Amino acid sequence: MPKRKIAVVITARPSYSRVKTVLQAIQEHPYLELQLVVAASALLERYGAAVNYIEKDGFIIAAKVFNVLEGENLTAAAKTTGIGILELSTVFDNLKPDIVVTVADRFETMATAISASYMNIPLAHIQGGEVTGNIDEKVRHSITKLADYHFVASENAKERVLKLGENPDFVFNTGCPSIDIASAILKVKTLNFNPYQKYGGVGAAPDLSQGYFVVMQHPVTTEYQDSRKHIEETLLAVSELNLPTLWFWPNVDAGADGTSTGIRSFREKNKLENVHFFKNMEGDDFLVLLHNAIGLIGNSSVGIRECAYLGVPVINIGTRQNRRDRGENVMDVSYNKTEIIAAVATILQNGKAPVSSVYGGGKSGNAIAHLLATLPLQFHKTISY
Amino acid sequence: MPKRKIAVVITARPSYSRVKTVLQAIQEHPYLELQLVVAASALLERYGAAVNYIEKDGFIIAAKVFNVLEGENLTAAAKTTGIGILELSTVFDNLKPDIVVTVADRFETMATAISASYMNIPLAHIQGGEVTGNIDEKVRHSITKLADYHFVASENAKERVLKLGENPDFVFNTGCPSIDIASAILKVKTLNFNPYQKYGGVGAAPDLSQGYFVVMQHPVTTEYQDSRKHIEETLLAVSELNLPTLWFWPNVDAGADGTSTGIRSFREKNKLENVHFFKNMEGDDFLVLLHNAIGLIGNSSVGIRECAYLGVPVINIGTRQNRRDRGENVMDVSYNKTEIIAAVATILQNGKAPVSSVYGGGKSGNAIAHLLATLPLQFHKTISY
Amino acid sequence: MPKRKIAVVITARPSYSRVKTVLQAIQEHPYLELQLVVAASALLERYGAAVNYIEKDGFIIAAKVFNVLEGENLTAAAKTTGIGILELSTVFDNLKPDIVVTVADRFETMATAISASYMNIPLAHIQGGEVTGNIDEKVRHSITKLADYHFVASENAKERVLKLGENPDFVFNTGCPSIDIASAILKVKTLNFNPYQKYGGVGAAPDLSQGYFVVMQHPVTTEYQDSRKHIEETLLAVSELNLPTLWFWPNVDAGADGTSTGIRSFREKNKLENVHFFKNMEGDDFLVLLHNAIGLIGNSSVGIRECAYLGVPVINIGTRQNRRDRGENVMDVSYNKTEIIAAVATILQNGKAPVSSVYGGGKSGNAIAHLLATLPLQFHKTISY
Amino acid sequence: MPKRKIAVVITARPSYSRVKTVLQAIQEHPYLELQLVVAASALLERYGAAVNYIEKDGFIIAAKVFNVLEGENLTAAAKTTGIGILELSTVFDNLKPDIVVTVADRFETMATAISASYMNIPLAHIQGGEVTGNIDEKVRHSITKLADYHFVASENAKERVLKLGENPDFVFNTGCPSIDIASAILKVKTLNFNPYQKYGGVGAAPDLSQGYFVVMQHPVTTEYQDSRKHIEETLLAVSELNLPTLWFWPNVDAGADGTSTGIRSFREKNKLENVHFFKNMEGDDFLVLLHNAIGLIGNSSVGIRECAYLGVPVINIGTRQNRRDRGENVMDVSYNKTEIIAAVATILQNGKAPVSSVYGGGKSGNAIAHLLATLPLQFHKTISY
Repeated sequence: MPKRKIAVVITARPSYSRVKTVLQAIQEHPYLELQLVVAASALLERYGAAVNYIEKDGFIIAAKVFNVLEGENLTAAAKTTGIGILELSTVFDNLKPDIVVTVADRFETMATAISASYMNIPLAHIQGGEVTGNIDEKVRHSITKLADYHFVASENAKERVLKLGENPDFVFNTGCPSIDIASAILKVKTLNFNPYQKYGGVGAAPDLSQGYFVVMQHPVTTEYQDSRKHIEETLLAVSELNLPTLWFWPNVDAGADGTSTGIRSFREKNKLENVHFFKNMEGDDFLVLLHNAIGLIGNSSVGIRECAYLGVPVINIGTRQNRRDRGENVMDVSYNKTEIIAAVATILQNGKAPVSSVYGGGKSGNAIAHLLATLPLQFHKTISY
Repeated sequence: MPKRKIAVVITARPSYSRVKTVLQAIQEHPYLELQLVVAASALLERYGAAVNYIEKDGFIIAAKVFNVLEGENLTAAAKTTGIGILELSTVFDNLKPDIVVTVADRFETMATAISASYMNIPLAHIQGGEVTGNIDEKVRHSITKLADYHFVASENAKERVLKLGENPDFVFNTGCPSIDIASAILKVKTLNFNPYQKYGGVGAAPDLSQGYFVVMQHPVTTEYQDSRKHIEETLLAVSELNLPTLWFWPNVDAGADGTSTGIRSFREKNKLENVHFFKNMEGDDFLVLLHNAIGLIGNSSVGIRECAYLGVPVINIGTRQNRRDRGENVMDVSYNKTEIIAAVATILQNGKAPVSSVYGGGKSGNAIAHLLATLPLQFHKTISY
Repeated sequence: MPKRKIAVVITARPSYSRVKTVLQAIQEHPYLELQLVVAASALLERYGAAVNYIEKDGFIIAAKVFNVLEGENLTAAAKTTGIGILELSTVFDNLKPDIVVTVADRFETMATAISASYMNIPLAHIQGGEVTGNIDEKVRHSITKLADYHFVASENAKERVLKLGENPDFVFNTGCPSIDIASAILKVKTLNFNPYQKYGGVGAAPDLSQGYFVVMQHPVTTEYQDSRKHIEETLLAVSELNLPTLWFWPNVDAGADGTSTGIRSFREKNKLENVHFFKNMEGDDFLVLLHNAIGLIGNSSVGIRECAYLGVPVINIGTRQNRRDRGENVMDVSYNKTEIIAAVATILQNGKAPVSSVYGGGKSGNAIAHLLATLPLQFHKTISY
Repeated sequence: MPKRKIAVVITARPSYSRVKTVLQAIQEHPYLELQLVVAASALLERYGAAVNYIEKDGFIIAAKVFNVLEGENLTAAAKTTGIGILELSTVFDNLKPDIVVTVADRFETMATAISASYMNIPLAHIQGGEVTGNIDEKVRHSITKLADYHFVASENAKERVLKLGENPDFVFNTGCPSIDIASAILKVKTLNFNPYQKYGGVGAAPDLSQGYFVVMQHPVTTEYQDSRKHIEETLLAVSELNLPTLWFWPNVDAGADGTSTGIRSFREKNKLENVHFFKNMEGDDFLVLLHNAIGLIGNSSVGIRECAYLGVPVINIGTRQNRRDRGENVMDVSYNKTEIIAAVATILQNGKAPVSSVYGGGKSGNAIAHLLATLPLQFHKTISY
């Protein structure tokens, strides 16, 4: 029996971190062959060049596709997706995969979904069914309606995918593969590397030995105009708190420049004497950093997901993670300096949060690989009602 | 108050016929401005060049976009969609519409949906919620999850869109605008033009005075390999029946060449002495032709929709219209010469079918224009469960 | 020493025939590795699907790129080139060739030239320096100004490339590789296969034993509007002559539909009792067919090139081969029935034409492979004056 | 007589400055209608958003096209050109211009040239025939071979275009339109605005009253790998000289990130106490700034062109302007700190340079508009030898 060829398309640094254990499990599976496609911001230096980590981790890349269109407006996001479809179709036509895997809900993941489903290649979707109330959510559910297999991360997500009319035989709560990595991190109870030396970056080099905060705040696509104002509230809060802080640069998104400009401009005018800025960090190190942090500030899904499992307190700002399942580690605040500062005070008082397995127990990668190897190959479906 | 700018993207001849009364109603509405974009196969001679009818009907075209990629496999359909997104995004960026309208469920209509929704332009979808069990269905529901307003054609469709988690405030059973045209045709009780003279075409010129059948059969995307075999069953049936028959050429689709090759090859080898082939026909004439036909054979949605209202008996072949709501005028058969011949016999016995308003009562165009003028402009949404 | 990777991009059936011996020589060369890319009309059934012959001949294809945009106007040609650049750049980025080879002067070959030269990959151009007086000529000289190595087919062509300011160290009259194949054909002095059985096609099946003509006429891009009128003159001449005739379908070009429509429409209205139509033929068989024909009618470059070497009389119609070097086998006529008929009469009187080596002596493939293996790798150049 | 429609495509800030007087002359001409298309980096904030100046200057924009693909390698430049062709073809198909004008030699200007010439639209090229010895030169001459009319900027350039085989009836030395603007600046003998207040920017705010240098250095495409090293030599020289310096950010080019990264990294590590950085400046103000500067350092063509006319001493670094005609104001140095410092010393000793009209006398805009209005419309051409 020839191995099944599984094409996985990685388009961004966070997606790579999320599915790394899936890639490993596919690679190690006796009946599967991994066809790894790296595209979009995963190839670009200014978004952390996930491609470098992918190669360092020893994965063979079957094809690279540069398709990020530059621009300050939302048009660029749409066009990036169009170019992605055009080129991924050629890639799939040449690789002839048996199954294509698309990850999560970033706008450009739609390109993978459309190319595969239009080409009658069975499509698997990791992480459908979640609710966030923005363009990501439209994209996520829209992909669900194209996908043939659904590997979701929580019970609520599973229920939602079923309500969307998908066939229960092909909807699986595998947990989130990002938790697989977090589970290995649980025992690393001190910061076992020097982040300044290992990852460079710019700004101050605060002493981390008495604890530190991590900040990661992305622009919210549907609130494009407000990105700059939003980030300024966080900057003001962090500046006023003046606690040791490690700040991570945002991903590419239509609003990227609003957020980035906000940060750059703030830095030109203000001293941030306790803040260091990183462009990116390897997934494992990042989790160790989080695990040993006092808390996380921002709107990254890592706060909802890995931090639940790790018990890291999270100040979740704004609407980006709206209605996503969350553990008790999350405090929600709005884009507001005062609220952020108050939440930090609460965390400083309460310390570490309780651990939760709302997003799975650490075996997702293997579970997904097993399903990819055994599910019937099919691309016909119809709504269940 | 400035008029709302409504961009409608027409990508195929049948879509134009379907929404012609919507375009008229938008154009005549005091608070709306029509921005008509014509793209894809609607521009191409070999698919009936809808653009010619559009111009003849007096509509001003704001932009034309050639984006059909040529090819014998499904890759071309995917890439056509990618190019469509790339270019429609530029068109929308230049036209700055307040609402974008996408029609039905052909693969390339996804391009309109993605460009609009990624660019935060409110998106209206005409004809969501129907069930057909093929790639069109994936596309249709996927667009529903991107769209902000839903103008559906039947009660069942409405219910399904609601189950998909859409906000009831923005889901409307307007009926199908194609019925608006059919309602004007009801009183035309004889064939009031000579189709051979007016539309040319090739083949025999059967005498139509004692009744005739119409054939319209499109390839079914997910059954690409079988297109040729499927069409041959119909060709054999029609050849054996040897009744006066008017046959319409299929639309562009990934399988187009299977179907077209099948027809061409059959014609080279066999005499079809009672069959005339048309490339296309103006919508009104086509409905008059149907209204005065003994019956329709094939898998076109016109059989399900307009023919219900007109009471024309329909032999619906294969899976393309699976689970779509239908009136009593429809007999379903498989891709099988014998079944087709038997169904024809039944029709010849029973005559005209009863009339049904399952797809609306003839006022859809105005209803949709009114909604486009008055609905709140918005592009934020979240699933209802 | 690692082998040099040589990417050759084939975009049309005639280009494949032309460079087949180059591909073989590269493949057999100890220091070269062939990376064969097949794109554009070379992949499409209705232009003879060169890809099938390529695979049958045993070449491994490194990548396929569907990029022909469908349309009835010149816009499609331009856009096909744009898509070609977009995708070939990705292909080159993944294949990392040391040299890219582009062939001749069809509009879409510019895509190969731009991708390679913009990516700082040394670019070799086969068949520059010729003069034809249409859009192909603009394209050809424009590619010369991008190319780093020039493998031209005649002394006049070499002189012209030098006058264009290219460095004499990198301009080589290798002769035309199409002659390599013709040289093997010289000894095949009878039609050694039955073309009807082997290649199908449509129309009459004239008896070929007493001699026959071959027709191959392509649309001329800059005379788009006139394509149909031009082909009709040839059709009228052939019809009136009523001699056994084998007619080859034209290539894809912006005007393709004018020519094709002309032929189809003529066939519907007139009986061509002595004419058979082919879509395509394997290169060797085609040359055998020409070698044993009374003469060739049309505007194909095969008449100028291979037929010179084979001594086949050619009636060259219109402007397409204007100012291209030619042997004594060529008679030039305009788009005019009477002139074509008169030229046929002359040929019938004179018989076989004298042989000429104006386009080389049959060793081009090896010569080009040798140069590709030994020329210094470089992509810097400047005009020589 | 209907006005001739002249589509001019602007793709970068410097191109806009260069042809602004042409745009004005077209707009004011009684027989011409301007169709202004703005594309590529001319739309992007981080390259100075020429679009803002264009709108401020009162020009109506017929279409905007975002087509810059993001990436750290040369692949992106090629793909940007491909997307440009795809979309500009649609724009031309909708605007139906009588003549298309492409400017200079940036890689993406090839997109304009290909779309127009493939679509049989007469193509005018401004600024052909110059020699620079890099990818720009390949592009420039390649466009010459596609263009139908040539508006060149110097006698040497004219001679070169003629040698390339162009028809002398359509080659005109109109001078460079950038000199039209410079001619109005000649009388502005003091810096009549505060650049810090008017244009923001970052860094020190040196006192300009005792004179200052301007720096503008772009990456050189064919030396991609070296961009960073090259810029560092200039940074070291400027740092050591410690004279008041106004530094302009580079354009987008494949190497942009090498240069930009070099500057950013140098600034993080070193104090540049006498250097202010600008992103961009309106054309007129920039010329006033140059006219009143001690000298210009870098590799911008403004040093070769406008500075000749203005008599500003220029230290021209590296190969970018190689073999371009130059006045006596230019000193050529290599990428070398010591050479740059020595050249500055010479300038400080000698002061203002002699004025030269090698690039024209200030009436180019009108001359070009007149030719566009009166030249015969044509797109057929053939090489003259």
